[in-house]
Amino acid sequence: MALSTRHLLGIKDLNVDDINQIFETADNFKTVLNRPIKKVPSLRDVTIANIFFENSTRTRLSFELAEKRLSADVVNFSASSSSVSKGETLVDTVNNILAMKVDMVVMRHPYAGAGVFLAKHVKAQIVNAGDGAHEHPTQALLDAFSIRERYGEVAGKKVVIVGDILHSRVALSNILCLKQLGAEVMVCGPTTLIPKYIGSLGVKVEHNLIKALNWCDVANMLRIQLERQDIKYFPSQREYTMLYGLNKQILDGLDKEITIMHPGPINRGVEITSDVADSKQSIILDQVENGVAIRMAVLYLLAGQGA
Amino acid sequence: MALSTRHLLGIKDLNVDDINQIFETADNFKTVLNRPIKKVPSLRDVTIANIFFENSTRTRLSFELAEKRLSADVVNFSASSSSVSKGETLVDTVNNILAMKVDMVVMRHPYAGAGVFLAKHVKAQIVNAGDGAHEHPTQALLDAFSIRERYGEVAGKKVVIVGDILHSRVALSNILCLKQLGAEVMVCGPTTLIPKYIGSLGVKVEHNLIKALNWCDVANMLRIQLERQDIKYFPSQREYTMLYGLNKQILDGLDKEITIMHPGPINRGVEITSDVADSKQSIILDQVENGVAIRMAVLYLLAGQGA
Amino acid sequence: MALSTRHLLGIKDLNVDDINQIFETADNFKTVLNRPIKKVPSLRDVTIANIFFENSTRTRLSFELAEKRLSADVVNFSASSSSVSKGETLVDTVNNILAMKVDMVVMRHPYAGAGVFLAKHVKAQIVNAGDGAHEHPTQALLDAFSIRERYGEVAGKKVVIVGDILHSRVALSNILCLKQLGAEVMVCGPTTLIPKYIGSLGVKVEHNLIKALNWCDVANMLRIQLERQDIKYFPSQREYTMLYGLNKQILDGLDKEITIMHPGPINRGVEITSDVADSKQSIILDQVENGVAIRMAVLYLLAGQGA
Repeated sequence: MALSTRHLLGIKDLNVDDINQIFETADNFKTVLNRPIKKVPSLRDVTIANIFFENSTRTRLSFELAEKRLSADVVNFSASSSSVSKGETLVDTVNNILAMKVDMVVMRHPYAGAGVFLAKHVKAQIVNAGDGAHEHPTQALLDAFSIRERYGEVAGKKVVIVGDILHSRVALSNILCLKQLGAEVMVCGPTTLIPKYIGSLGVKVEHNLIKALNWCDVANMLRIQLERQDIKYFPSQREYTMLYGLNKQILDGLDKEITIMHPGPINRGVEITSDVADSKQSIILDQVENGVAIRMAVLYLLAGQGA
Repeated sequence: MALSTRHLLGIKDLNVDDINQIFETADNFKTVLNRPIKKVPSLRDVTIANIFFENSTRTRLSFELAEKRLSADVVNFSASSSSVSKGETLVDTVNNILAMKVDMVVMRHPYAGAGVFLAKHVKAQIVNAGDGAHEHPTQALLDAFSIRERYGEVAGKKVVIVGDILHSRVALSNILCLKQLGAEVMVCGPTTLIPKYIGSLGVKVEHNLIKALNWCDVANMLRIQLERQDIKYFPSQREYTMLYGLNKQILDGLDKEITIMHPGPINRGVEITSDVADSKQSIILDQVENGVAIRMAVLYLLAGQGA
Repeated sequence: MALSTRHLLGIKDLNVDDINQIFETADNFKTVLNRPIKKVPSLRDVTIANIFFENSTRTRLSFELAEKRLSADVVNFSASSSSVSKGETLVDTVNNILAMKVDMVVMRHPYAGAGVFLAKHVKAQIVNAGDGAHEHPTQALLDAFSIRERYGEVAGKKVVIVGDILHSRVALSNILCLKQLGAEVMVCGPTTLIPKYIGSLGVKVEHNLIKALNWCDVANMLRIQLERQDIKYFPSQREYTMLYGLNKQILDGLDKEITIMHPGPINRGVEITSDVADSKQSIILDQVENGVAIRMAVLYLLAGQGA
């Protein structure tokens, strides 16, 4: 078994066979995660550094658990306490970590393309855990895997991604992954939060939430990133919630039963209300569980072709 | 072996049999901790998340060492770098961690009742590592265990808790634990730092330190929490030390030799002077050592009844 | 095998036999680090606490990897989230950690002599990972080890240390280590950054960079610590770079090929330009790699004489 790439920098790097291979490997690991003993010795001789230049408890924890369950040696490195603040370049920082005989680097970085840049300049295998507004490939994989789990396959499914498409790495990676697997994809949000180039990705655009929901099988409700001060939201959060917030009344008024996804963390009452988030149609916690299995699969497959 | 509870939220949850079972299990683990190899494989298939919404190096380290010596898989999560700052609710945060197949949650939280609330809303087993001014059950257990170690038993012993009873979770948990084991308990401090409801707990109140010390077998000197800006101390720290600070002169002037305890971290020269803290009558470092054994016992016994 | 000391507080504690023994042990561990399985079970029954009162990702990571590859149990403790901010003394903090049955303490501290002080007052074995402007013994060992690796031996080699000698723990430890191994040592920098007592250490002083480089076999280019606000630099950074910055033109104009070292993190374009840092004459990344092997050797040898 081998992927067609040494790194996972973006969904762009993967072909359909790669994605299916990741899914099948994740199926196995999901079985392992539901056993009493959730550990396998697969990466006992691999050292992985999680380098997070942006806070992300959720993603970092998911990768860390994936690594520990593969029996890898794990070291964590966060930017706030790092030599980065001492004026060191990114390549120097990573080369130093690699000189300590680290095999694989999982990196979250605030700038788009940081992973691609790094992969060109250092020898380790890089897994992109989110780079700016660019890509977040393991999130897209776990989302598609969760749709596959719900419906048996992704091909032919209609998926609408609702919210701030412009600033979202989740949206871009999801579109690329879902398209490749044969899903129909629509984005829905205010014109101010939909990028101009969106047509070139082969997705539909819809500004009316009800119409979008009546079209789809699955709605992936992105979060409004209230904590990112550099994003000037227009419409305001209140207007956004009025126009694009999903509540039980809207859900019950649709023609059919759709599946609700959310990459988390949820702002309850902003993108979706609590009754929607906790409803049977929501697979939000399945996404989280699948995240560990998908990350185990990615790390396992990449490690197999490291040298 | 089984406790009468799935969680350890407070001493309130434990009956006398539970406490004695924890003590006997801790006796065994204390033997383990004094061997060259301090590890046992008991929780090899258990993943524990330490979720600390308040800084506490001491308690976090003690739990982490207890978990590692039980061979559990450990992940740490601290609030400052978490999605909590992104507007996520406590229940969502914990449910997300659990979806990653975590079996047990050790939580420190600034609000009283956070653990009880959580235990109602999520599926994991919760161990309360301190919730606001409410309870700190493992501290109370290790304190009582240390008294038992010193005197053979807790029943019949006279214990005075000196200091800021009003804002202390240590005081409340200690009172409940000691009373249940048959000790006589007194609290001693200025009226401003003793809660009105204290009589209902069946403890004596004494405002004069010398009288309190002459009454007791054991004095547990609480710390003045200088770092908690939200506490308005009256009397001031200097007045407090004059009236309630324990020094060698006072200790030597007592009718009998008493045992000195302190939950740490010590403000030397405030609650107690260095010569008292380092005297043979002090069992402060025994408390710390017993903390790891007690936490191993609690985690071990709870894990045995997880499902 | 045994060192003549129970602690590693400074190069001062080591005699030539100790240093050679560390080097020979590090030779073995370097072989281990280049195997697919980089772990040995040597310290499986040892618990090590890394206590860092100053940020240092690089050194902390290097120690942590060394410890994990020796199979030690590792706990990390950083000052920012610690009870230190609650008014606890250093001795109390460490005694508490030791009471939890920790065998060895690796400590970075902003004040010179913190390790020496601690070793007098607590029972654990202490490894100094940098104390103020005083000593940084494992850095000096890895630097000398890297010179030995390059040239076969250290004796007789001419080493110039360039930069801020006054505020550098790296400089002092390097001088002591290199002198003991029989190297000739020169320091080079502006008079304002060279301490008055330097003559007493038996090293040459040179203020002209070109002359210094033409004299030496190895140049160890210290970093200008831009982040340390308490250091008032004179000359300014720009003047420093003009007078003491090393670039390719200077390097190519020398009479012979010298070896370039740097303790990191590098300020590219300040102390050295990128083409020098990345040239074949640079052994900067070898230093990093050797750091893990040297730290494994130190911890392994000290653990052998712990009791």
